Amino acid sequence: MLPSDKKWYSEPAIEHGSAFSLTITEKLFEEQSPFQKVEVFATEKFGNLMTIDGLVMLTTRDNFLYHEMMSHPVLFTHPNPKRVLIIGGGDCGTLREVLRHPGVERAIQVDIDEVVTKAALLHFPELCESNDDPRAELHFDDGLKWVKEAAPGSYDVIIVDSTDPVGPAEGLFGEAFYRDCLAALGENGILVQQSESPLYHLELLAEMRRFMGKAGFAHRQTLHFPQPVYPSGWWSCTMAAKAPIPAFREVDATNRPFETLFYTPGTHQGGLSLPPYVARALEGV
Amino acid sequence: MLPSDKKWYSEPAIEHGSAFSLTITEKLFEEQSPFQKVEVFATEKFGNLMTIDGLVMLTTRDNFLYHEMMSHPVLFTHPNPKRVLIIGGGDCGTLREVLRHPGVERAIQVDIDEVVTKAALLHFPELCESNDDPRAELHFDDGLKWVKEAAPGSYDVIIVDSTDPVGPAEGLFGEAFYRDCLAALGENGILVQQSESPLYHLELLAEMRRFMGKAGFAHRQTLHFPQPVYPSGWWSCTMAAKAPIPAFREVDATNRPFETLFYTPGTHQGGLSLPPYVARALEGV
Repeated sequence: MLPSDKKWYSEPAIEHGSAFSLTITEKLFEEQSPFQKVEVFATEKFGNLMTIDGLVMLTTRDNFLYHEMMSHPVLFTHPNPKRVLIIGGGDCGTLREVLRHPGVERAIQVDIDEVVTKAALLHFPELCESNDDPRAELHFDDGLKWVKEAAPGSYDVIIVDSTDPVGPAEGLFGEAFYRDCLAALGENGILVQQSESPLYHLELLAEMRRFMGKAGFAHRQTLHFPQPVYPSGWWSCTMAAKAPIPAFREVDATNRPFETLFYTPGTHQGGLSLPPYVARALEGV
Repeated sequence: MLPSDKKWYSEPAIEHGSAFSLTITEKLFEEQSPFQKVEVFATEKFGNLMTIDGLVMLTTRDNFLYHEMMSHPVLFTHPNPKRVLIIGGGDCGTLREVLRHPGVERAIQVDIDEVVTKAALLHFPELCESNDDPRAELHFDDGLKWVKEAAPGSYDVIIVDSTDPVGPAEGLFGEAFYRDCLAALGENGILVQQSESPLYHLELLAEMRRFMGKAGFAHRQTLHFPQPVYPSGWWSCTMAAKAPIPAFREVDATNRPFETLFYTPGTHQGGLSLPPYVARALEGV
């Protein structure tokens, strides 16, 4: 049992037989939006914690892992990314990382739920520090619809930074959405999406890649990285492209004109180095 | 709170404000040894779970991460490891990985507590499958004393596979022990030790490396890897040597004559690629 002299926030992953818990001190924010319930808690050791419908989204302490790995690998893989679309990402942490790349001319964030960004502005202001960058555009709209209606070839990179494939985000893991993404991407365009835990969700990951393939993304590449507050503490993202995915721009990544806490060409390459049991499960999908 | 319709085994990491929990069905083993309390539980999704004094040691499901990363990187780094000493490691999982290397002529395991191995033989028999290998020797003795009394230069690799630096294992994280290890190692000898979480225990990790340096291990190399059931789900080990640590034998690692679930030359290199914030914290130590 958890010591009762502390207040705990727990996220059980019942179907995987585990739970992760953080000690909290108070609730800082709670709002039921038309889409979901957004809450922010002050924790004892992880800074602030945002949850959506009871699931951990991010903490002040360790969100750098996820946000860096959702943005820098794909941006250093595309030969010259200028137009970036972020679907989801309402906490603005991915947007901040994207805008560190001087070559990016336009970064459009489309999250369905304005309440997520409202909570982030209040309780994760550091993640929102680039929201006023003239290259940034924040829209609160349906990402599925946004991509469907996008002009063909209008983005170089699409980052799907969404919640898990239940509730409002479910459609973001489907073949129809991937087909629309493919159409919205330019010639060397790359889609990247968070793809859950390499320990818990290998079947889901394989299914995502299969759907991406059926939608016309002939090439997929999965990266793994640590993410302590997500189920199993180990997470992944998957890139997808019509054309063969080139080796990443290692020299540019080495000479990146910004600081990172986790990302380097080495951790990028490490992320791409899949454990054999994962590689086997993803073989041919 | 954790759902009360399940039985949970929880390990709080109070000073880091988190806890990890597994759903369990029954207790399979419990014995108070002269040193510690050893328990084994059946879990719903992680196979069996061994704990020592209430701390998670390993589960059937994910121990491959730790055991592979404690053995293969160091064994593929030493130019020709023949004589291996394992301090701790009573579950025999590290021993099994070590003995996969055909070049190893002798692997001596010295755990202070026979009860750990008794529990492993009963409830983790797969980890003990090499215990009868003619190259294996199991001793139940004090590792500190064993190393102190070892003939100079008698080992190529020493693997310290111990519990955390509290209780019986505390001395295994100290300068005097490292000095004895250095004397017990041959010319190209390498020590490797589990070195806790890169998120939670950076100061401890830095201190270990400082002690190793003061003991005469002029060269240190830390690797990180996922380990879901340990605090933060992210773990590390640290190699130490008197001579500069050579690049690992990548060709041999690629052509390894055994199967692995996590280890490859790619995950080895990935483990060596430290995140910038970790590299900075370990600079000069």
